Amino acid sequence: MNSHNHLVIMAGGKGSRFWPLSSEECPKQFLDVTGCGHTMIQNTLARFEGIVPKENVWVVTLAQYAALVHEQLPEVPEQNLLFEPCGRNTAPCICYASWKIKHRDPRANVVVTPSDHHVEDVAAFRTAITEALEYAAETDAMVTLGMKATRPETGYGYIKADLSYASSRRKSIYRVDAFTEKPDFEKAKTYCAQNNYFWNAGIFVWSVSTVVNAFRVYAPALSRIFEGLMDIYGTPAEQARIDKVYPTCENISVDYAIMEKAEEFFVRPSDFGWSDLGSWSSLREKLPHDERGNATVGSDVALYDTHNCIVHTAGARKVVVQGLDGYVISEKDGVLLICKLSEEQRIKLFH
Amino acid sequence: MNSHNHLVIMAGGKGSRFWPLSSEECPKQFLDVTGCGHTMIQNTLARFEGIVPKENVWVVTLAQYAALVHEQLPEVPEQNLLFEPCGRNTAPCICYASWKIKHRDPRANVVVTPSDHHVEDVAAFRTAITEALEYAAETDAMVTLGMKATRPETGYGYIKADLSYASSRRKSIYRVDAFTEKPDFEKAKTYCAQNNYFWNAGIFVWSVSTVVNAFRVYAPALSRIFEGLMDIYGTPAEQARIDKVYPTCENISVDYAIMEKAEEFFVRPSDFGWSDLGSWSSLREKLPHDERGNATVGSDVALYDTHNCIVHTAGARKVVVQGLDGYVISEKDGVLLICKLSEEQRIKLFH
Repeated sequence: MNSHNHLVIMAGGKGSRFWPLSSEECPKQFLDVTGCGHTMIQNTLARFEGIVPKENVWVVTLAQYAALVHEQLPEVPEQNLLFEPCGRNTAPCICYASWKIKHRDPRANVVVTPSDHHVEDVAAFRTAITEALEYAAETDAMVTLGMKATRPETGYGYIKADLSYASSRRKSIYRVDAFTEKPDFEKAKTYCAQNNYFWNAGIFVWSVSTVVNAFRVYAPALSRIFEGLMDIYGTPAEQARIDKVYPTCENISVDYAIMEKAEEFFVRPSDFGWSDLGSWSSLREKLPHDERGNATVGSDVALYDTHNCIVHTAGARKVVVQGLDGYVISEKDGVLLICKLSEEQRIKLFH
Repeated sequence: MNSHNHLVIMAGGKGSRFWPLSSEECPKQFLDVTGCGHTMIQNTLARFEGIVPKENVWVVTLAQYAALVHEQLPEVPEQNLLFEPCGRNTAPCICYASWKIKHRDPRANVVVTPSDHHVEDVAAFRTAITEALEYAAETDAMVTLGMKATRPETGYGYIKADLSYASSRRKSIYRVDAFTEKPDFEKAKTYCAQNNYFWNAGIFVWSVSTVVNAFRVYAPALSRIFEGLMDIYGTPAEQARIDKVYPTCENISVDYAIMEKAEEFFVRPSDFGWSDLGSWSSLREKLPHDERGNATVGSDVALYDTHNCIVHTAGARKVVVQGLDGYVISEKDGVLLICKLSEEQRIKLFH
């Protein structure tokens, strides 16, 4: 295990698409969405077992989730928890973490990952991450993991790779031709039919010096804010200063701030059963099904004449469903939702 | 208020059709099914306010429901609670209560009523009961209340009245031609089209001497059992003896044991918005509807694109339903049921 390997877990999301399971008080990353016995953020950390030493794990989250992080990730050192006073998308979050890491370990190699994604094949994931880390350590490359696009998904951004241009050091790593935003269905179909388009999973690998330089070049205002705090990182004054400067940061994703501008970006094509679990439908697809297409998470769920449903009950003692097709049924703490999966984009309007 | 008026509330039912709202631990009569703030048995007793003195109210129930009766009807004297060791249908229940009342008050006039039926117009109910009680006090008549049959209901027994033969004392009370069992739909339609058929609501009015004589004549074995206990009623030995003899009683309804055999039965046609609330569908019909035919009982229920549903939540903090037509959604104590109303007869198989 390389002692310079670091991990940044971004855990500030307030996802509302899994309501009533998720809520602003306890968003998806802090929930056991799949019923596996661990929360999403716990699974995220566990995937890096043997790759990143615990003392090099950093979590960036909103201050309101401090207690949840302490409770769910007790092994992460207190001083590695970075608290945002408000959400400002991924660029300020990654910039803050990068300068903090540089302050601690200028030779750091860093993986940045969302905290609420699902990975089926953890061994394949670890291979991909390890290769990308080694590559980033040896070069000035910024690497992202590209997921094999298995269907014309319109909910993800795509990475177009130049497959003719494999890295000389790593046969499995290719230069990125372009990052493209979420496409419409027709475009997604053409992407999907080609072998050089990959889903952008939002997992980045780079050395801290590379990413800090990228911020300096492509997002200089942002970079100046966090470089300007090098003297106070690790001192009692840090949080108060962060609370003051953070709201002044531009609200911008790392995709716009860095990725789409950088010329030397690489992709490591991967196929480890990834999903962002962005909807009840995608959770239904990822979970094991019965022969009628139903996925259930809950202790005592009985289904009659029911097809293509997802039943997710966190607290219910017993659930009986008769005669539904294509619905989500979710219960948590006495709050119950029944909704057609085809209408689930309306869920955020329901609460 | 006639001090000889007595009331027998039959509360031994274990109804399972309102699961999960009702259960064997807490059947329908002990529940606030309509969301009015009172349980069915509390409403049943309240309907006799001003007609029957509290000290003349008797409740016959299973021993396992003693605590529920104490809690919900604290005004009923302890010595008026009759506990069946096991269910034996209505004839043993009424026979026991009748002999007990005769032991206390040989001049008693008695109303026998189920504990879990719904009445909309309480004033009309009281008028009907009062007339029937006065008639029973003045004569040897057994009187039942007949509900105006407003639809071809196949779930009720019917009373055929001889409308040409009104009582000389009471113009509103007629001789019964016949009691008929639950009809098929075609028969129910012909009954409904005539003006001399009424639903049998299971509410009976008679003097205690009349009903005791009827048991002696038509159900002599049963009558002997409870007449034989006249010496021990009100003594500490009573419950032990009841526990011993009750299981030996024939399991038979008062309809078969008495009504269908008696020659002098009368009916008081009534129209006070009666329902036995025998199903979720009938509850939906009786409750107020929104403009889409939905009835809801619960504190925070939001419906979208939803029609003809009944949502009944006893404990849920919040319920959101989208895109259902003709379903029951019921939640109680962490147990949840979603079922098509057209399939609700299967509910008892679900738990």
